[in-house]
Amino acid sequence: MPLAVLGTGVVGRTLSARWVELGHDVVIGARDPVATLARRGDESFASWAQRHPSVDILDHASAVSRAPMVVNATNGAASLAVLREVGPERLAGKVLIDVANPLDFSGGMPPTLSVKDTDSLGEQLQRALPDTRVVKTLNTVTADLMVHPDLLSEAGSLFVSGNDDDAKGAVTDLLTSMGHRDIIDVGDLSTARGTEMVLALWVRLMTALGTSHFNFKVVR
Amino acid sequence: MPLAVLGTGVVGRTLSARWVELGHDVVIGARDPVATLARRGDESFASWAQRHPSVDILDHASAVSRAPMVVNATNGAASLAVLREVGPERLAGKVLIDVANPLDFSGGMPPTLSVKDTDSLGEQLQRALPDTRVVKTLNTVTADLMVHPDLLSEAGSLFVSGNDDDAKGAVTDLLTSMGHRDIIDVGDLSTARGTEMVLALWVRLMTALGTSHFNFKVVR
Repeated sequence: MPLAVLGTGVVGRTLSARWVELGHDVVIGARDPVATLARRGDESFASWAQRHPSVDILDHASAVSRAPMVVNATNGAASLAVLREVGPERLAGKVLIDVANPLDFSGGMPPTLSVKDTDSLGEQLQRALPDTRVVKTLNTVTADLMVHPDLLSEAGSLFVSGNDDDAKGAVTDLLTSMGHRDIIDVGDLSTARGTEMVLALWVRLMTALGTSHFNFKVVR
Repeated sequence: MPLAVLGTGVVGRTLSARWVELGHDVVIGARDPVATLARRGDESFASWAQRHPSVDILDHASAVSRAPMVVNATNGAASLAVLREVGPERLAGKVLIDVANPLDFSGGMPPTLSVKDTDSLGEQLQRALPDTRVVKTLNTVTADLMVHPDLLSEAGSLFVSGNDDDAKGAVTDLLTSMGHRDIIDVGDLSTARGTEMVLALWVRLMTALGTSHFNFKVVR
């Protein structure tokens, strides 16, 4: 399945690499692909791109045009502006998987949430893109665990929020193909408020446990 | 150990009954004990009190004077006012276990949080009671699971937040005696922001799963 991943950071790279491995046709969208590829260094995007020659690096709009399923892996603080710039027309009819969190680091650590409680980043994106089906998921785990849930001693749970059942079904299939087993449909996109607000506990647990390799398993 | 439980609702009753069972000396604090005991009906507090004759029912201040460890099981919307009325002097030197959540149901379901992100109910209580050691815990599970974690197919995690390590240690011992096995010290009381904000997911999961009998297990 063609997948357009917006974002060249750790999350975008990790998801893209895993989806290539699973046989998907992946294209990455960057704000400025030439500048991004021009940066040098061992951990540079250029070095990653060299190791993943099947992945095309395009500007956001061109990347989006290549796939029916688009992934928002941009920095949560920039996501709304990025997606607005791509525009509702280009994204119309597509599924947008939103994995970002609206974390605000301007006051230092721990971050606060720039939107919460009565709204969420997922809902902000949905309002900006009325003809796109936004599905919020994967935002409650670190990048490694998004793609390899088996790295933990036992599998945790993932949450899926969205207003369109078919879109949630397609995303759930994709998550299942990545090894996730307990995928909970929490409800409509307003339930993304809850999964984003979990980050307030997540960041403190990361400090308390000394690792980002943990997940919440909903035992019942 | 003498325990004073403030609150005559389901949480206060459930904790009190379990602690009596475990051999603790429990007293319950009510705003107006005479009025509370005068209410009739099968689910009335009077009927509960009759089944638990060892538990004295006093006004808040008198109940607090009986025990070095006090439990805030009042409605989260009223907790700050109740504890302020009891007063910092009466609560000085004591440990206050805060199990309440600052849920605001004024806009209907789902509730929002009256305090969040940069503050928490736990911290509000601590500021109002500077000579009391506030420990936030148990607020992420329903009453039954507070006292019988073994009701689930497998044990989940509990979170403990507080500024005083000795107080957290004493509370952890109490939780352990109730059957809890994975008790995570998340850090100082500001981490209560995270465990209170989890309620935004909790209330939606309750709807999605059709039960309040679930818990978060932190797998790592």
